[in-house]
Amino acid sequence: MTDEFFMQQAMREARKAFDAGEVPIGAVVVANNQVIGRGHNQVEMLNDCTAHAEMIALTAAFNYLGSKYLMDATLYVTVEPCLMCAGALYWSKIGRIVYAAPDEKNSYRRATGQTNPFHPKTKLEQGPCTEESLQLMKTFFQQRRN
Amino acid sequence: MTDEFFMQQAMREARKAFDAGEVPIGAVVVANNQVIGRGHNQVEMLNDCTAHAEMIALTAAFNYLGSKYLMDATLYVTVEPCLMCAGALYWSKIGRIVYAAPDEKNSYRRATGQTNPFHPKTKLEQGPCTEESLQLMKTFFQQRRN
Repeated sequence: MTDEFFMQQAMREARKAFDAGEVPIGAVVVANNQVIGRGHNQVEMLNDCTAHAEMIALTAAFNYLGSKYLMDATLYVTVEPCLMCAGALYWSKIGRIVYAAPDEKNSYRRATGQTNPFHPKTKLEQGPCTEESLQLMKTFFQQRRN
Repeated sequence: MTDEFFMQQAMREARKAFDAGEVPIGAVVVANNQVIGRGHNQVEMLNDCTAHAEMIALTAAFNYLGSKYLMDATLYVTVEPCLMCAGALYWSKIGRIVYAAPDEKNSYRRATGQTNPFHPKTKLEQGPCTEESLQLMKTFFQQRRN
């Protein structure tokens, strides 16, 4: 089980969002080589700007484990997290975050600059599927403009 | 209907959290002089570190309005928001945020420093019930240490 495999699971979630007319972002939470939470952006469907892929995947993982901490888990997400999701990931003490595409405009870096908002023990990495995720986002916003 | 009145509603939510053994923070969202969302911290009960008072109150307000934006609403919250909640409030484009007690340790300022994480049109104010909220928090943490 590789980062590539799990990021592909997150990409599958992102494509569900795309097909539903949502900004195409997906996420999975993995522990012990198993997906314990998954989510895709549902902001439009739920009329709720907090319904980001990461928030939904985290809440599913908390429910699965019956724990409010995820020290031994990894979040795979197709786009770099926003400030809200970074704050949620901080509280979760998640072990590792792997994102596919950077997001200069909307990521947490918009407001934190050089400060690391995550838990000191959380590892953050840019992982596989960067081009695939960037392309899906680009296609989505191009279609919206037409 | 004054800020004092609505902050007392948020304090009522905070006392519900206190009585349930949760960190005592409460929030209400108000539009047209009416409470359209309320919430208290339910992190322990739900085993979910994203179940903050503000997140619950925001989601209730989105559901009530059928809208994912809250430009004409005010959030009253008994403790200054954390980074996650600040990020959620940013996305909501909420008109005004009034908080009772500052939080040097856990507020969004932990990671944003001097940068304003909120929407440029959001007004942020420290409002009434500061001492009342600080005292409730202090009592809670003193009891937990005993």
